[in-house]
Amino acid sequence: MAAFIFDLDGTLVDSVYQHVLAWHTALRDCGFNLSVWKIHRRIGMSGGLLMRALTRELGVADVDEAMAERLAQRHKEEYLRLLSQVQPLPGAIELLQELTRSKVKWAIATSGALETAKPALDMLQIPSDIPIITRDQVKRAKPDPDLFLRAAEKLGVDATQAMVVGDSVWDMLAARRANFLGVGILAGGYGEQELVQSGAYRVYADPQEMLQHLDELGVRDD
Amino acid sequence: MAAFIFDLDGTLVDSVYQHVLAWHTALRDCGFNLSVWKIHRRIGMSGGLLMRALTRELGVADVDEAMAERLAQRHKEEYLRLLSQVQPLPGAIELLQELTRSKVKWAIATSGALETAKPALDMLQIPSDIPIITRDQVKRAKPDPDLFLRAAEKLGVDATQAMVVGDSVWDMLAARRANFLGVGILAGGYGEQELVQSGAYRVYADPQEMLQHLDELGVRDD
Repeated sequence: MAAFIFDLDGTLVDSVYQHVLAWHTALRDCGFNLSVWKIHRRIGMSGGLLMRALTRELGVADVDEAMAERLAQRHKEEYLRLLSQVQPLPGAIELLQELTRSKVKWAIATSGALETAKPALDMLQIPSDIPIITRDQVKRAKPDPDLFLRAAEKLGVDATQAMVVGDSVWDMLAARRANFLGVGILAGGYGEQELVQSGAYRVYADPQEMLQHLDELGVRDD
Repeated sequence: MAAFIFDLDGTLVDSVYQHVLAWHTALRDCGFNLSVWKIHRRIGMSGGLLMRALTRELGVADVDEAMAERLAQRHKEEYLRLLSQVQPLPGAIELLQELTRSKVKWAIATSGALETAKPALDMLQIPSDIPIITRDQVKRAKPDPDLFLRAAEKLGVDATQAMVVGDSVWDMLAARRANFLGVGILAGGYGEQELVQSGAYRVYADPQEMLQHLDELGVRDD
């Protein structure tokens, strides 16, 4: 394989549960009462789809643009308030360094906006020449494959030459839709079977375990 | 079936994610750095086993009694600080009321101590004659079946006449060990397959969905 495209939250950085509770607080502040696990299962999908899921689950009328903006703002404030709890997942920095050392191309593609992704990216000591694709740079976020396709383009590879590494079914679904192979990471809190069912061909606990099994993904140490 | 025995957190009350982050904070404050999803997957097991898992995961020496006490104390403080975010799961109060109305016996059995369980129990409007079994009342918590066996005893039924309703694999495991049928609830954030693999014979999203399918569990409206 020529390249890896990584999701960020729950894949490289241990931030999913803080995002979940930040959304829960934002939703409650705006009068929406959604069970926490249902938010958890939607983390990583595009904000627009999240709003549609919300209206369906709660049976409320359409969430208008002003409300969507207010929700996003409250989520951002809450998440940034919890940021001191967030850190890289075990092995994340070492995995990225090993790929660089082995001359394997890699990039990061996240459904998050640059403003909330920036602190997590800063924790990972990413070299300045690595492509970082955030929500702001594409029309549709996951499970549309736009983020991953843009990352592949920046890396100069085809989808068939790259693997998508992510913790959510939205990552795996977006990967399949554009012919990327998907690799699942359990650290976002999905069950292994959920990731396999949505297309992951290998599943690792966290970046540490993936680093120890890079041979299974075709990375040669030469 | 003669009776239902319910787990509390993640089964009747939407409190799992707050417990998870409370443990995460407590562990960090005591110098232990464990990924959040690994804590999530251990919520609902006994505190003693949680400590053993901790020492194995982190490769630290035994967690001594003073440290275990300090961790439990910090978890309790943090959880109570997050309590304003916690509420009954959809349909929880209605489900319990419907069982009472249908003259089906039920009880609650939780791995939590009375002090942290009390506020959640208060939210559920539980009649005073319902047996409530907490960690304090048995020698071993889940996945040992002591909590469920004590609950069955108080209800005056055999294990084969009662179903255990829970959100975690520890509930399902404890249920099987004592010949209870297990019913899984997704609201604690486990994947459906994880619950089925650990023995759940039916899985519902939340108490609301269970209430709508009580016929599948043999509850007759007569």
